Amino acid sequence: MDVVQRLRGELGEAVSTDVAALTASRRDRSGWTSDGVPLAVVRPTEVAEVQAVMRLASATRTPVVPRGTGTGLAGGAAGTVDSIVLDLSRMDRILEIRADDELAVVQAGVINQALDDALAPLGLWFAPDPASKAISSIGGNIATNAGGLLCAKYGVTREAVLGLAVVLADGRLIRTGHRTVKGVTGYDLTGLLTGSEGTLGVIVEATVRVRPLPVGEVATIGAFFADVAAAAAAAAAITAARLRPAVMEILDGAALSAITRYLGQAGLAGTPLARLSSGSTTEASYLLVQCDGASAGDEAAEVLVILGSLGAEARLSASREEGERLLRIRRSFHPALAAEGEVLIEDVSVPRSRMAEMFRQIAAIGERFGVAIPTVAHAGDGNLHPNFVFGGGEVPEHVWAAADELFRAALTLGGTLTGEHGVGVLKRRWLAEELGDDGYELQRRLKEVFDPLGILNPGKMFD
Amino acid sequence: MDVVQRLRGELGEAVSTDVAALTASRRDRSGWTSDGVPLAVVRPTEVAEVQAVMRLASATRTPVVPRGTGTGLAGGAAGTVDSIVLDLSRMDRILEIRADDELAVVQAGVINQALDDALAPLGLWFAPDPASKAISSIGGNIATNAGGLLCAKYGVTREAVLGLAVVLADGRLIRTGHRTVKGVTGYDLTGLLTGSEGTLGVIVEATVRVRPLPVGEVATIGAFFADVAAAAAAAAAITAARLRPAVMEILDGAALSAITRYLGQAGLAGTPLARLSSGSTTEASYLLVQCDGASAGDEAAEVLVILGSLGAEARLSASREEGERLLRIRRSFHPALAAEGEVLIEDVSVPRSRMAEMFRQIAAIGERFGVAIPTVAHAGDGNLHPNFVFGGGEVPEHVWAAADELFRAALTLGGTLTGEHGVGVLKRRWLAEELGDDGYELQRRLKEVFDPLGILNPGKMFD
Repeated sequence: MDVVQRLRGELGEAVSTDVAALTASRRDRSGWTSDGVPLAVVRPTEVAEVQAVMRLASATRTPVVPRGTGTGLAGGAAGTVDSIVLDLSRMDRILEIRADDELAVVQAGVINQALDDALAPLGLWFAPDPASKAISSIGGNIATNAGGLLCAKYGVTREAVLGLAVVLADGRLIRTGHRTVKGVTGYDLTGLLTGSEGTLGVIVEATVRVRPLPVGEVATIGAFFADVAAAAAAAAAITAARLRPAVMEILDGAALSAITRYLGQAGLAGTPLARLSSGSTTEASYLLVQCDGASAGDEAAEVLVILGSLGAEARLSASREEGERLLRIRRSFHPALAAEGEVLIEDVSVPRSRMAEMFRQIAAIGERFGVAIPTVAHAGDGNLHPNFVFGGGEVPEHVWAAADELFRAALTLGGTLTGEHGVGVLKRRWLAEELGDDGYELQRRLKEVFDPLGILNPGKMFD
Repeated sequence: MDVVQRLRGELGEAVSTDVAALTASRRDRSGWTSDGVPLAVVRPTEVAEVQAVMRLASATRTPVVPRGTGTGLAGGAAGTVDSIVLDLSRMDRILEIRADDELAVVQAGVINQALDDALAPLGLWFAPDPASKAISSIGGNIATNAGGLLCAKYGVTREAVLGLAVVLADGRLIRTGHRTVKGVTGYDLTGLLTGSEGTLGVIVEATVRVRPLPVGEVATIGAFFADVAAAAAAAAAITAARLRPAVMEILDGAALSAITRYLGQAGLAGTPLARLSSGSTTEASYLLVQCDGASAGDEAAEVLVILGSLGAEARLSASREEGERLLRIRRSFHPALAAEGEVLIEDVSVPRSRMAEMFRQIAAIGERFGVAIPTVAHAGDGNLHPNFVFGGGEVPEHVWAAADELFRAALTLGGTLTGEHGVGVLKRRWLAEELGDDGYELQRRLKEVFDPLGILNPGKMFD
């Protein structure tokens, strides 16, 4: 009896070999598509079903690709040839919310935003905020240790995970971590599994930390700079002034050029970009700052003073509508690029003090390879997303060559090749370079402890 | 040539076999003393020396006990029979402080407080604040993932560690983590090594995150309750009101009884405890709250309202001196116990909602075993320290029996047997019970990857 028949025997309707499902499972939002076809997509609703899949996979040495809602940006959840794609999106129950303990227990497939919606009436929220939060699952967020816009102030996903339930390669279920704020019993397996990209186990449930919603109104500032170096200097000055905005985003000239083409003159009205003519190419830069919490107004006033002293044209929103207009510039970045072609989103991170230099190198690499590299940066934490736009189909070789130089530049500046998207398939060729041979070897051996048969997401993270 | 001779040949004066040094290395601050004598204490000043020790230890299969300043509370850094104690306290150089990147790079032996002293002129601080911070090393704090009083607001040590330099069992040096706020390249070895108690590698250097010092004056409140259940309810109400004090500490009746004996009537004057007669036994409880940051005054006012509504006699300090008096009650806890005998400090942690119940069980266990168990709790995070006072020498069997019941009670309440002290020797017999057999087995196998010869702190954490 073949693997699919055995899966059907145990899991019935949860097993699909539908061509559309198999095809969809071969890609994520990175644009990368696996060149092989999986055996089946399995959509369990219970932990016991996940255990059954893993037992069967172990018995038959069949690769398993754990997958949430497929919003990854590195190919990590893409179904590979002859694998079982273990799609956890139907395990979407919020199991428990404890306001007094400021924690929630969720199944892996719960959408990030859905948890926030459930928490809001209690005055609580789940701080991890990947840009995909409306459509990405918490299990996937944890598997990639997802970042987002708010990390400088509120931390990355790891800081919000207290404990996990994980199905191991052989089908056993373990629970890691705690329901407590503190706990140091044994090694931190919760942290080890967070960001492990489905290569160590299948995360089926998470106990997450939730927080009180920030009080008061958010204060939003949009600032126009002559160039991106000035914007980066301003972001550094805000940090140096010991201010801690919730959001601090920089768009470079190539990004603004695409955005003005996309929004048109009307979309720029009432923002510091109104001076740009729609569709023009610019060297200018935009800095978006949002302050929240009890002292948001005071902080925003200090930010305005700093921006003014650095020659920016800055505007503090006087109303929610104006705040929305200022935000819309940033939000239009991805749609503006998508309107012009296929997009490859990169994800380097550098120490904050090297951000201006990284922007300079991005521009230089773009020039050398004859490509525009519109870039947005989470400026509070030094995480930059250089983007490549190209005609449909495969990523062109010169784009990979340019990306290669980007990674090396980031590493040389003391940075990392992925700040928040993960290694997946797209960055594995650079992994050993960043980790060093000894670190790489150690990581491979850790994987062998969890996955002696090599069935957990093989080909991801490691070559 | 024996191991000590070879060590001397390579490390010269850094190697000591002085009886006083060997004796001192056999204990930490837990009161536990190893029953065997180490071969030597080695005090390196350079990473290369640590590597030499580990190469030699691997070649000769000699156990190595990494040690900071010996302030541990679980026996984890106590030198065991025929081991090399690797004392890192002379590796005490602050290698780099980057205010713009809000990070510092320190050798493992740097005293926690010394880093703070170096940071203060820059308006920065290192948030981890174990009670031992004036005398404990950052390497030791990381090896145990130390907690402290401020964790509910500012996180545990793990949240302040960006990267590590670690000497492996065979003497190789690896670097983990990042100088960046975000970074998801490969598994989180930094997190895995944090809290690993010297069993996976020797932490020689750390890149740590530092923060802007909170602005403004700290507001201190001392509150008197009729019993500890009322104090626990008040702490829960403060959390439920979405307030986030920096410090929130509860002392129970047994603790106050010892403190009043220790401080005498004069020491209680000007505090809500003045009503207690010195030396009397009481059921009363004391709650200490400190608010910091820009909205400290507003927060403290809200806390006062909550405390008043719950029947506390509460006092907000009007001056620094008064604040000191309120703080002194809490600070006198450990000296008050030490004045009465040997002290065994326990360290359970429970979900905040179960704290009152844990206090109730501590009292019941104390009654059952005929011992007082004075207890202080970090009430913001549910971490309780029940203390046993006994006549000198070994911990009496009935104290271990009572501690055993404490751990089981904490586990039953969804808690953990150690919130911040670590497993070391003293808690290893309960480790498998908390982790479960599969989790325990997995952790042992992770250790084997790092330490195939079993020379890294053997007998600690695992039996």
